[in-house]
Amino acid sequence: MQRKRLADMPCPIARGLDRIGEWWSLLILRDALLGLSHFDEFQRSLGIAPNILARRLRALVAAGLLEKRRYSARPVRYAYIPTACGRDLRPVLLTLLAWGNAHFAPEGASIELVDTVSGAPVTPLLVDAVTRAPITAPAYALAAGPAADAATRAHLTARGARPFDEPPQPT
Amino acid sequence: MQRKRLADMPCPIARGLDRIGEWWSLLILRDALLGLSHFDEFQRSLGIAPNILARRLRALVAAGLLEKRRYSARPVRYAYIPTACGRDLRPVLLTLLAWGNAHFAPEGASIELVDTVSGAPVTPLLVDAVTRAPITAPAYALAAGPAADAATRAHLTARGARPFDEPPQPT
Repeated sequence: MQRKRLADMPCPIARGLDRIGEWWSLLILRDALLGLSHFDEFQRSLGIAPNILARRLRALVAAGLLEKRRYSARPVRYAYIPTACGRDLRPVLLTLLAWGNAHFAPEGASIELVDTVSGAPVTPLLVDAVTRAPITAPAYALAAGPAADAATRAHLTARGARPFDEPPQPT
Repeated sequence: MQRKRLADMPCPIARGLDRIGEWWSLLILRDALLGLSHFDEFQRSLGIAPNILARRLRALVAAGLLEKRRYSARPVRYAYIPTACGRDLRPVLLTLLAWGNAHFAPEGASIELVDTVSGAPVTPLLVDAVTRAPITAPAYALAAGPAADAATRAHLTARGARPFDEPPQPT
């Protein structure tokens, strides 16, 4: 019920969340993007029951985020490899990582993004792909796109050109 | 049970997910960052039952992502405003938005990020905050940070310097 409604929304954030399915699937994708691919590798990393892990891997394959490839015939064994769509989730995971480190790692970072040549920690920044200007208010905002339905258009128009990150004043 | 385990993990992605709580909370934050702040505005936007919405707003206030401010004394009414921590989630939502538009909007974008001066759609790109170089493999990778425990260190070291986004070959 809940998942169906997410998929039915015109909002691309809602649709994306519907495809991921649940938090644990995002951690499976994190591990897959780190190079884990075998069932027992995911199980060791996540510490979850085999039947639960099998169900989540199946869902991620069905959603088109992982691809299942047989790597052994006897015994039959499969590897789970991120698809192009799954790999495109990398910026979401990296921004989540930066947010978690900034706010919920009082003891310091356990995992961080680094420059592989210098080894130095790197802060990721979201910029305009063309101009490389940081995406901040009021220069950037969300707006109704060409495929917006009337409700989405009304919703976004009612907000006016309100910058996406400016805290509104209580009225 | 599940939420407790996410919070206990050293991974900043897992800890961040724990604070958000669930997909619907992310949609409430999306709306809050768009400028919605009143209970009935969230309810209209999300179409969820008042008791469910009240519980989610409470959880987001408790997690430190929204701040509750009284804006009317008679009747007593509260506005829900993103905190600094909640506003820092913006890049996560914007990367999710771009991913959803790229893969799950075959009819075209309903909501898009735009340059507020030109009105042109903008593609967000994740770059190194210092050098402005796009974060791609093999120049960037995840590594154990100064606060990594032995298990995290072993987990990341076992992966070697594997680039974060390079699809591994089945072995």
